[in-house]
Amino acid sequence: MDFEIIRDRLDVLVNSNRISELKGALSMLNVVDIAEYLSGLDNEKMLMVFRLLSKDISADVFSYMDNDQRRKVMDALEDSEALRIIDDMFMDDAVDFFEEMPAGLVRRMLAGCDETKRAQINQFLRYPENSAGSIMTIEYVECHTGITVGHAMAEIRKNGVDKETIYTLYVLDDRRVLLGTVALRKMLLASDDAIIDTLMNPQVISVTTTDDQEFVADTVRKYDLMSIPVVDRENRLVGIITVDDIVDVIEEENTEDFEKMAAMLPSEDEYLKTPVITLCKNRLPWLLILMISATFTGMIITHFENILSSAGAMGVALIACIPMLMDTGGNCGAQASTLSIRGLALGEIQFSDILRCLWKELRVGVLLGIILALVNFGRLLLLNHTTAIIALIVSISMFLTVILAKALGCTLPLLAKSVGLDPALMASPLITTIVDACSLLILFSIATRLLV
Amino acid sequence: MDFEIIRDRLDVLVNSNRISELKGALSMLNVVDIAEYLSGLDNEKMLMVFRLLSKDISADVFSYMDNDQRRKVMDALEDSEALRIIDDMFMDDAVDFFEEMPAGLVRRMLAGCDETKRAQINQFLRYPENSAGSIMTIEYVECHTGITVGHAMAEIRKNGVDKETIYTLYVLDDRRVLLGTVALRKMLLASDDAIIDTLMNPQVISVTTTDDQEFVADTVRKYDLMSIPVVDRENRLVGIITVDDIVDVIEEENTEDFEKMAAMLPSEDEYLKTPVITLCKNRLPWLLILMISATFTGMIITHFENILSSAGAMGVALIACIPMLMDTGGNCGAQASTLSIRGLALGEIQFSDILRCLWKELRVGVLLGIILALVNFGRLLLLNHTTAIIALIVSISMFLTVILAKALGCTLPLLAKSVGLDPALMASPLITTIVDACSLLILFSIATRLLV
Repeated sequence: MDFEIIRDRLDVLVNSNRISELKGALSMLNVVDIAEYLSGLDNEKMLMVFRLLSKDISADVFSYMDNDQRRKVMDALEDSEALRIIDDMFMDDAVDFFEEMPAGLVRRMLAGCDETKRAQINQFLRYPENSAGSIMTIEYVECHTGITVGHAMAEIRKNGVDKETIYTLYVLDDRRVLLGTVALRKMLLASDDAIIDTLMNPQVISVTTTDDQEFVADTVRKYDLMSIPVVDRENRLVGIITVDDIVDVIEEENTEDFEKMAAMLPSEDEYLKTPVITLCKNRLPWLLILMISATFTGMIITHFENILSSAGAMGVALIACIPMLMDTGGNCGAQASTLSIRGLALGEIQFSDILRCLWKELRVGVLLGIILALVNFGRLLLLNHTTAIIALIVSISMFLTVILAKALGCTLPLLAKSVGLDPALMASPLITTIVDACSLLILFSIATRLLV
Repeated sequence: MDFEIIRDRLDVLVNSNRISELKGALSMLNVVDIAEYLSGLDNEKMLMVFRLLSKDISADVFSYMDNDQRRKVMDALEDSEALRIIDDMFMDDAVDFFEEMPAGLVRRMLAGCDETKRAQINQFLRYPENSAGSIMTIEYVECHTGITVGHAMAEIRKNGVDKETIYTLYVLDDRRVLLGTVALRKMLLASDDAIIDTLMNPQVISVTTTDDQEFVADTVRKYDLMSIPVVDRENRLVGIITVDDIVDVIEEENTEDFEKMAAMLPSEDEYLKTPVITLCKNRLPWLLILMISATFTGMIITHFENILSSAGAMGVALIACIPMLMDTGGNCGAQASTLSIRGLALGEIQFSDILRCLWKELRVGVLLGIILALVNFGRLLLLNHTTAIIALIVSISMFLTVILAKALGCTLPLLAKSVGLDPALMASPLITTIVDACSLLILFSIATRLLV
């Protein structure tokens, strides 16, 4: 059913206070849709609807609400009720929630938790931001080496109901070192008295708590995993990360790349929820750096002042072509750098491919350069009625600029990566600024030779 | 273990032809790593190693190999052996493979398949590219309404071993209409003689065969699903899509957006595998369009020729500032449009938010415009020693350009979306071209007033 229709029907029930009908309607909905509906309500109605949710879904709905509303719910609820919700949340969602809440609320809530839960949450809150430890969950099923399938199945039946995934069983030794995994499908097909170790896959792909979430996402994507175990430095199992959380990590990392490539500092908040002042802070540094770098282009123009003024009308015709030359150069560089940055992000190219990339881009540059220069030459003569010499100067500059832009665009991200910088910084804005200066130098050098 | 080390050790075994040791070493590796290793070998060695793979993993390894190598394997193998591999592949991987192979090979292979398989593959090949139908698989477990849990478990044990996911059971009526799903975890916890319908979740989130894969990915991401059923127009179950395939779709769609936003036609191949001529074809159209659009900027400069030549040295100082003004305007526009395009892609903003976005960007524009104009004013006076009047003209133009760039950058993607165009087209390159012309108009209008 379309979300618009859902919202309209619920609105009618909420506004006319038909409580029991509303309860019934809510029970037909997915928790994600309920959270989305709540986000459009004012505080009073939101709290009213939230209190109507049945106990078994309220924690789930809470996990999908935004931080503002979650804080309001926490403030409005009795402490015991608030604690029950936190208790019902998966560990990764609970930690996520605590990370975003004000310290006072966190202290009050943690004081109410039982000791084990409190210790766990505190432990999780200590992992560095964006590390595997900070996004993992502890809802998994484990067993010790040497037990039978029947035993393990009983364990799953007993403890599995609350687990994020029960479809992989983790086999540990006495020191909790991860020995291997057993897929539930294999256990279903085996006899009850088979020893679990015989079904075990010992080649476990795992990550450590301090690995960056981007690395975790790359690993899960590469091996098509549904979940990945997280171990500490002694290879002891401490948590798992499921693929549905990885999907969010991937979108987060992509957004970060989009932002960096448009000369912004990355932000974790949704656009509409980010205050104006934060948006300005994220955008100002690169705008300033790039604006001041563009001083060079001005200096180049001033330096060649003589040729411009001595050439008279031809000088103006030359100047009139500068924006077009700069834009085309910038676009050519942006194309090459985008493919280079994206290839690095997806692991499709490495620094060692730099010569192959350069060779490819040089050929692309020559081919595109010829076509663009020819079109440009014709356009200048036929449409703009410039003199042949100006058209020639601009077209040769165009040809050389395109090749240079392609070469810089593909190599700079690879070079950045090789010295430990983020390749996404070498995107359109910076490349454009560099190519601008180069294209002006090329244009004026050729003009000096051909005009004087 | 690091992939470099794996490769070096295997290289030694391959080069010294130590077959049985090689077999043992391969048995320790993940199929993805084996495929990656094969991709670095020449044909002869690649085929030699491929033939050593045990029967139960060769189809999996084959799924992860690239198209060139797959074709070579198919050509080198006996038909019966090739057919066995296709038979062992998951349906979505097999279809994927057939889509990429030359028609002759496809016909030869299909002729060898049994009739059911052939009919299925033909059916799959008819779904439109990038539709849910084209990426779904038929490896799922289904049962009829009304049976007991014990029955269903027996069904899973009997047929589940080959299925991509056995963790969700799909409940159908006599006409194969999807009634609901049952999670395997629920079945494990229920008694054997419970009727399956009592455990069933009737609120199934599904997609239809013709839905675009981007819509499928958005749905899976929104509801945190591990798999999603695909139904036909009569709501009959025809396949499922698992989240590990969704991860690939998400990266594909992101790459497409990156490419479009850098003024390229999207490509499905990896960069290093794309021929130079294809790269040129993808890049040329927008370069030409944007280059020709940039003619306007030239016309504006020519139009204001008088003011430039009559102003003498001041004219040159003004021209020297054009690249900096254009670049800053372009960067400001790119920042706003990137956030707008990304917000649309993630469903965080809609067309109806256009006024909220505009209001936000106007405030950001005024704030950034003031800072950039002031810094620029100081820089021109102190570093470049221009006259105060030129510094004033450029700084006022800077202020107005920044605001205009922010306003255009945030609204154009939303407007594009509302008329059914791809918002990603309204990215940096196009915005830059538009803002360039506007900034020149602003600059010269102000100069005309203040200089003459």
